[in-house]
Amino acid sequence: MTTASTTPNSDTSNLHEVAPDDPIRERIRQAAQNVREQTPLAQSFTNFVTINLVANAQLAAGGTAAMSFLPNDVTSLASSCGATYINVGTLLPFYRDALQEISEHLSRHGCKWVLDPVAAGVGVARTEILKGFKDYPPTVIRANASEALVLHDMWQLGDAAGTDEHNGPAGVEAADSVDAAITAATDLAAYLALHSPTHTGAVAVSGEVDLVTDGRLVYRLPGGSAMMTKITGAGCSLGGVTATYLAVADPLVASLAASMLYNVSSGAAERASHGPGSFQTAFLDALWNVTPEEIASAPLYLA
Amino acid sequence: MTTASTTPNSDTSNLHEVAPDDPIRERIRQAAQNVREQTPLAQSFTNFVTINLVANAQLAAGGTAAMSFLPNDVTSLASSCGATYINVGTLLPFYRDALQEISEHLSRHGCKWVLDPVAAGVGVARTEILKGFKDYPPTVIRANASEALVLHDMWQLGDAAGTDEHNGPAGVEAADSVDAAITAATDLAAYLALHSPTHTGAVAVSGEVDLVTDGRLVYRLPGGSAMMTKITGAGCSLGGVTATYLAVADPLVASLAASMLYNVSSGAAERASHGPGSFQTAFLDALWNVTPEEIASAPLYLA
Amino acid sequence: MTTASTTPNSDTSNLHEVAPDDPIRERIRQAAQNVREQTPLAQSFTNFVTINLVANAQLAAGGTAAMSFLPNDVTSLASSCGATYINVGTLLPFYRDALQEISEHLSRHGCKWVLDPVAAGVGVARTEILKGFKDYPPTVIRANASEALVLHDMWQLGDAAGTDEHNGPAGVEAADSVDAAITAATDLAAYLALHSPTHTGAVAVSGEVDLVTDGRLVYRLPGGSAMMTKITGAGCSLGGVTATYLAVADPLVASLAASMLYNVSSGAAERASHGPGSFQTAFLDALWNVTPEEIASAPLYLA
Repeated sequence: MTTASTTPNSDTSNLHEVAPDDPIRERIRQAAQNVREQTPLAQSFTNFVTINLVANAQLAAGGTAAMSFLPNDVTSLASSCGATYINVGTLLPFYRDALQEISEHLSRHGCKWVLDPVAAGVGVARTEILKGFKDYPPTVIRANASEALVLHDMWQLGDAAGTDEHNGPAGVEAADSVDAAITAATDLAAYLALHSPTHTGAVAVSGEVDLVTDGRLVYRLPGGSAMMTKITGAGCSLGGVTATYLAVADPLVASLAASMLYNVSSGAAERASHGPGSFQTAFLDALWNVTPEEIASAPLYLA
Repeated sequence: MTTASTTPNSDTSNLHEVAPDDPIRERIRQAAQNVREQTPLAQSFTNFVTINLVANAQLAAGGTAAMSFLPNDVTSLASSCGATYINVGTLLPFYRDALQEISEHLSRHGCKWVLDPVAAGVGVARTEILKGFKDYPPTVIRANASEALVLHDMWQLGDAAGTDEHNGPAGVEAADSVDAAITAATDLAAYLALHSPTHTGAVAVSGEVDLVTDGRLVYRLPGGSAMMTKITGAGCSLGGVTATYLAVADPLVASLAASMLYNVSSGAAERASHGPGSFQTAFLDALWNVTPEEIASAPLYLA
Repeated sequence: MTTASTTPNSDTSNLHEVAPDDPIRERIRQAAQNVREQTPLAQSFTNFVTINLVANAQLAAGGTAAMSFLPNDVTSLASSCGATYINVGTLLPFYRDALQEISEHLSRHGCKWVLDPVAAGVGVARTEILKGFKDYPPTVIRANASEALVLHDMWQLGDAAGTDEHNGPAGVEAADSVDAAITAATDLAAYLALHSPTHTGAVAVSGEVDLVTDGRLVYRLPGGSAMMTKITGAGCSLGGVTATYLAVADPLVASLAASMLYNVSSGAAERASHGPGSFQTAFLDALWNVTPEEIASAPLYLA
């Protein structure tokens, strides 16, 4: 499902650009190279709308994919997967129980996983599922600004629980700006780190200027293409590719590398296309053709 | 799923071309412009085969998309959606109860919705679901000729119920010509209008020469491309885009505008492509690039 | 889901090339021509990841498609379909009962069907489903090497049941070479033929050099493109297209023709593309544009 910040904000004047020789860039380059060399398997429990693009994006990024919905299918593969991706779009009746069983298994066995809380706040089943994840939290959250704010509310991580001021869910599109989600993202990332077996976690908020945080440092990533909001699955597939990267890197580096891969590739795709059809084709080509060096050189700022 | 009239019929000699300055064309142009300016949300409960194309076509036409299957997810968003799209392909066991609950909610709350009765006549569950919609009817039906004839039978709208002569369902392809479905389409549209909160409804029958009727006037729309029968989802995605247009226009104008957008775009895509793969890519590009003026100027006749 | 042999093996030096005037090539050409002229309907019960590509590949190859999951939907269409395709990826809870009912119906009514045992060996539900198919076997199996080996084990067709030495399942990717699956494939094909109403069956194992056998003759098919492992659904859609061909040809010819169509088309697509996005587009175009003569002339060897 698509992700769009409705409040344009590409002003990076109050941010500090990360230098070309900053060690984080070498770690990002190494993660991208590792994916290409190791073709890691990341499995997904994801929505029916964009499941094909998630798999194709993971393959184009250099990994391999497996998609399942039965808890036993997911848990059978969990230990041989580098990471698991869970996306709560297009729910079916059995998902609540299934996702509780799966998240509990992943947490108990120290399996890394990425959550995309698609449409957080819409429907009672999705709310129950997302609230349930507080006890068995993911390693990384990839969301839009509204979803991050809603999840922050649901997990009652703010100073005064339930009092965040935001616009709430608007279907699958963000109704809030990335800037408005900085505190929510940082709180969420700190919570993930606290419960992670490696004591690290990360939250990535997609928008015109992406945000990635491990709960301490807050990175901002401008660039990319507005055409990403005109194809379905830009955000979902970024979540899946983040899981691919998480299979070979720590949460912060995986989130940064995946977002930078997406920004470089979508920019290239926009220049090579004439509309959303050719954009998606060119985007998958770009995911495949971009080099680890190009990914590591993408615009990256510290807040 | 694909839609094809098996009886070629592009003869428009007994039809009256709608003049360039006919007010209906300006209303069509305005609808197309409104979609581009307002990016309306239309949600879908649709089949797994073409769900991705439905969402991408709605985005390319200028709207936004949300796809759900749980009744509470659909009803939660219904009031904030401009329209809802229901497509009965690829049924799951819980759909019969879910679709009854959803259609009842939409009707009771005066929410506009579009029905695509995919494969009407195939399987007992689909027949029960489609018969059930008679009590809580949609605002617009988008179908192929065979599906319109079968639904007309199921709802017993003919003079002598159940005696329509037609070829019946042939999977998801039409086994009847659009011409053979004129009476069924007109009866269905009149029934929809009778039960619509705004006292308006429309039926669109896709084929070599599309038919759109509000129960009184019968429009015919030649043009488009035979390649639309060589990609899956041409009809399904037209249903979704009709919902996008229905969010900003009345049933007749929405149905005409969506079909004209499709005819113009598929013609452009055929000229720019070399097979069904590049055709689909070019079709999505064309949906995005075609102007409201081009849509409103597409071939349009009155029967 | 993707199919890849992990042990490169394009050595055909110990194989015998099938001569241009061998009668099998004319039967393959005729099958391809029949599909184009008859546009046969093959229905599918297939996974959600690649369901769209399966349908589009069947259309591009010249057939028509219908996708269903309710047993009554599948059995309602079974007699009017030339063949049915069943693919066990992305299982839902009701599939075990549904697939038992469907396979029993297909067998009892002598309906031809193609099985793709995706991810054989992963999860208890999939194992129960695949074991259950032994009593109501398909007409054709399309698999990767690991899946063929696992199914051979499950059905206890070897000399010493359960003792096949192989690497087992690795998600949806093959962990074994096609060469290692020759005995399993031949045993499986002989078993299918024994239980087929026409006393014929076939097994196709995809890899760098595909294998097709009817239980007696073993054909090898080099060619194609390694890019087929970088898009999701290459194997799934080949299974679907095999069903399309099975609607107009015997199991051996259908399997050979479908694999040769895929090898010719993927080779052409690789030459016309710049990455996995444009590769998939070009592949669908090639499926549509390749001639029956080109298909019948593709590289073909006897072991």
